[in-house]
Amino acid sequence: MSDIVNRQWRLVARPAGMVQASDFEYREEPVPAVAEGDYLVRTLYVSVDPAQRGWMNEDPGYMPPIPLGEVMRGGTISEVVESRHPDYTVGDIVSGFLGWQEYALGSTGVLEAQTIVPEHPLPRYLGVLGGTGLTAYVGMLDVGQITEGQTVLVSGAAGATGSVAAQIAKIKGCRVIGIAGGAEKCAWLRDDLGLDAAIDYKGEPVSERLSALCPDGVDVYFDNVGGATLESAIAHMASGGRIACCGMIAGYNAAVPEPGPNNLFLLIARRITMTGFLVMDFAPRFGDARRDLSAWLDSGQLQAREDVQEGFENIPATFLRLFSGRNLGKQVLKVSDPTGTSG
Amino acid sequence: MSDIVNRQWRLVARPAGMVQASDFEYREEPVPAVAEGDYLVRTLYVSVDPAQRGWMNEDPGYMPPIPLGEVMRGGTISEVVESRHPDYTVGDIVSGFLGWQEYALGSTGVLEAQTIVPEHPLPRYLGVLGGTGLTAYVGMLDVGQITEGQTVLVSGAAGATGSVAAQIAKIKGCRVIGIAGGAEKCAWLRDDLGLDAAIDYKGEPVSERLSALCPDGVDVYFDNVGGATLESAIAHMASGGRIACCGMIAGYNAAVPEPGPNNLFLLIARRITMTGFLVMDFAPRFGDARRDLSAWLDSGQLQAREDVQEGFENIPATFLRLFSGRNLGKQVLKVSDPTGTSG
Repeated sequence: MSDIVNRQWRLVARPAGMVQASDFEYREEPVPAVAEGDYLVRTLYVSVDPAQRGWMNEDPGYMPPIPLGEVMRGGTISEVVESRHPDYTVGDIVSGFLGWQEYALGSTGVLEAQTIVPEHPLPRYLGVLGGTGLTAYVGMLDVGQITEGQTVLVSGAAGATGSVAAQIAKIKGCRVIGIAGGAEKCAWLRDDLGLDAAIDYKGEPVSERLSALCPDGVDVYFDNVGGATLESAIAHMASGGRIACCGMIAGYNAAVPEPGPNNLFLLIARRITMTGFLVMDFAPRFGDARRDLSAWLDSGQLQAREDVQEGFENIPATFLRLFSGRNLGKQVLKVSDPTGTSG
Repeated sequence: MSDIVNRQWRLVARPAGMVQASDFEYREEPVPAVAEGDYLVRTLYVSVDPAQRGWMNEDPGYMPPIPLGEVMRGGTISEVVESRHPDYTVGDIVSGFLGWQEYALGSTGVLEAQTIVPEHPLPRYLGVLGGTGLTAYVGMLDVGQITEGQTVLVSGAAGATGSVAAQIAKIKGCRVIGIAGGAEKCAWLRDDLGLDAAIDYKGEPVSERLSALCPDGVDVYFDNVGGATLESAIAHMASGGRIACCGMIAGYNAAVPEPGPNNLFLLIARRITMTGFLVMDFAPRFGDARRDLSAWLDSGQLQAREDVQEGFENIPATFLRLFSGRNLGKQVLKVSDPTGTSG
């Protein structure tokens, strides 16, 4: 394979504030030879996630920072294109963390051990059946601990995680209100996903709408955005409510950290529990989650939507879409079809 | 008893910002006659607590606001001075919520059903054996869920609740760091209460001291103050840490709500749970708490300190002490000794 070029996007600058395309640099490298016991995969789909923004910072978060000069880290779906390993056959589909590059060896450790036997379109294994779907599942059920009849609020509700989280709450018999940016997203939440209400934070006063929609308060708030929306949500929490903190995208590109909610005292007055969580801590639940999510997809109770951009060269631009709120559903980028398929 | 005057302090203004003595008005009323089946009590000690500041606001918190013109609400220890009720005898000591007045009838509903058989000095029944001690107990054990060997941080550590909370953590085998204002309070925490370290937030950079004292992070933070101290504590929480939000005194007198911590994203990155609680929700635990706290007092493992001011006329000034950080331990005000005792 050494005559093939491994295209890469490497992180070359730590953004001070909003991430920019110039923080990444395009490189070409030779594809390495496959030693005995190893195998080579080629990227089919790249996952594009807000969490990647945090990995670009120098401060260690829950993962070490991506070293400057290294390939940008990220989830992928790949195809085995050469194998000298007994467990992998050419054509196998594997999920992993190849990042923004086209080829990688199994021995680099960026692949999950498990291969995927696709029963759904491949992008779904990066979304509803991948990290974001699992996050929605454990965040709503294990952290949010929703029960039938509760009022549930989801921010970033038209995003990859939020849209699944909101639908899970509907499936479990909750009254669900989604917050999203723009009339199109809100219409999708109401008309297609069947949420009870949607609030367009770009066009409506969130706090006033919550007063009208949730006179008895919000029992569970699934937060993907933080910032002003979190403050509004806290103001409308019911006594004994729970906040599952999944993401705080509103602050990811702040050059200087922005102030937090000014009403945290309500955590006390209303006995609110606010829990930050990472999906990786819930691995024992992934089996349940994949089974349920897959069954809900099959039965039509759960709708998954992917926003698929194309072309390896467009990865940085696709990443930037996340922070301008342009994606609807799970943002992925298609690098190529599996060999032998027509796309 | 109708020839005796019932002295009162009534709430006459809702403070905009820092509470002032002029928000209260002194009144004298006749003491009501005692009907058959009723009884009359006289205030011995008045509890003075930061939480009372919240009850003065117009916005309902976890209790209805104190109506303007009404007697200021607050905890009390009283003595039965006249009784036409079979369960109460003259001389009985009762705890209750008479507020800032000298006399009240049992029929007004401001008294707890239970009488106290004092085995400790009376002010302790407003402190370590009353609301603040119970709060410290359930906050540290039920909410904080401390376990032996953990690193525990307490703010307001020289206050009524904080000083008991910190000592409970020591009794349970934790490493305990207290934050308090001033060298005298810090010396008390270290030298008398045996905390492992104390940080003087008025004279030391809290965040730098936490870096030095807690290189592996704080497992449980018991927060009485909120504000900048909460932000510093969040920055030093260990992964999987818990924050028990008991009070946020730093913001109680803010005319305009102050911004919250700018680092709430760490709740996610470090899987932190932040829980606001109210002691009243833990009534089933009060029996355990009183038994343990009393035993720890008897064994000398737990020290209780009360800051006792005197004189009914001084109640508002004593309340203001809380917000200038002058009290050390539980702030109470003595109105009079029980009849027949020498003081």
